[in-house]
Amino acid sequence: MHIHEFQQIISEKYKKRDLQRGIPATFMWFIEEVGELATALASKDDKNKEEEFADVFAWLCTLANISDVDLEKACTKYTGNKVKGFKPK
Amino acid sequence: MHIHEFQQIISEKYKKRDLQRGIPATFMWFIEEVGELATALASKDDKNKEEEFADVFAWLCTLANISDVDLEKACTKYTGNKVKGFKPK
Repeated sequence: MHIHEFQQIISEKYKKRDLQRGIPATFMWFIEEVGELATALASKDDKNKEEEFADVFAWLCTLANISDVDLEKACTKYTGNKVKGFKPK
Repeated sequence: MHIHEFQQIISEKYKKRDLQRGIPATFMWFIEEVGELATALASKDDKNKEEEFADVFAWLCTLANISDVDLEKACTKYTGNKVKGFKPK
């Protein structure tokens, strides 16, 4: 599935409500999911780990939707010849 | 571009170093990027916003790579008939 396609699915399902909620409150939901990912990463529950990765990605798409950012287009930063801004320490 | 394809690009470029760094230290890098996204969301700099979304997604892929999680497969949670675990408040 294309990155853009997934972002679009999230948009169709949730964008209306996401716009009403706004960026700050949506960011708080995103962070809640990031916290759940941290918990999952520290566990041995592979199924839960997979779910939490999906949740963080879905909420990242939500934030992108209400910020008018096309995540797939944004990723060309990494897929072009020059990688900028990524610190591979 | 497919979600899996992007995750693979990040894997080829960085997985060896990512594995050496390990999950806790990589999670800290991920959170640093999440913080930069928060700063970008509060600004009016659209170019920077786009870049920070890409960075957070790239580091999420990194975490998935060293956790043996296929992000595209994980996303079927949202693309099947039943959406589980997503709280669209």
